[in-house]
Amino acid sequence: MGTPSFLKLHPLLGDRVRLTIMAMLSASPDPLSFNELLEELELTKGNLSSHLRKLEDAKLIKVEKEFVDRKPRTTYGCSAEGRKEVKKYLETVESLLKQK
Amino acid sequence: MGTPSFLKLHPLLGDRVRLTIMAMLSASPDPLSFNELLEELELTKGNLSSHLRKLEDAKLIKVEKEFVDRKPRTTYGCSAEGRKEVKKYLETVESLLKQK
Repeated sequence: MGTPSFLKLHPLLGDRVRLTIMAMLSASPDPLSFNELLEELELTKGNLSSHLRKLEDAKLIKVEKEFVDRKPRTTYGCSAEGRKEVKKYLETVESLLKQK
Repeated sequence: MGTPSFLKLHPLLGDRVRLTIMAMLSASPDPLSFNELLEELELTKGNLSSHLRKLEDAKLIKVEKEFVDRKPRTTYGCSAEGRKEVKKYLETVESLLKQK
């Protein structure tokens, strides 16, 4: 049938919160901080942490820790792999939109 | 960023199996049989039945029963409502991911 299938896409992106996080990170020229993500997504801290950990474990995002004014600061960016998976997702959606 | 727009989408489409079923049905010119869906999706029969029932209850698909060579045959097609919701879903994902 050749229907582009969501089942062939990265399983972690099936969740709409994680897809939104990945969209934000892949659209941003710079890595984003935890608080920047938190503000935008309106999640609890625990909930956001848990999504970020899953994305990090799957190597879809890169986590960097640095010190700014002696305070630790963690930022999150899209990995090359993550960018590839987001692109694949978008291409699937676009080809489905074209079929109609 | 328009993040909360995801929350306005049909909740049943958040599941990627159901989204794939809806994508298949909305792309197909003719209704599909249970076995056609089963082959494409590689699910168990029970699992597929349960997804189809949810979609039918939500009126996103139309279920038709007919007799072919005296055997009952059930086919599944996208309802107008289902088509609308799939389009809205895909367009939202597209605009979210296209922000690059």
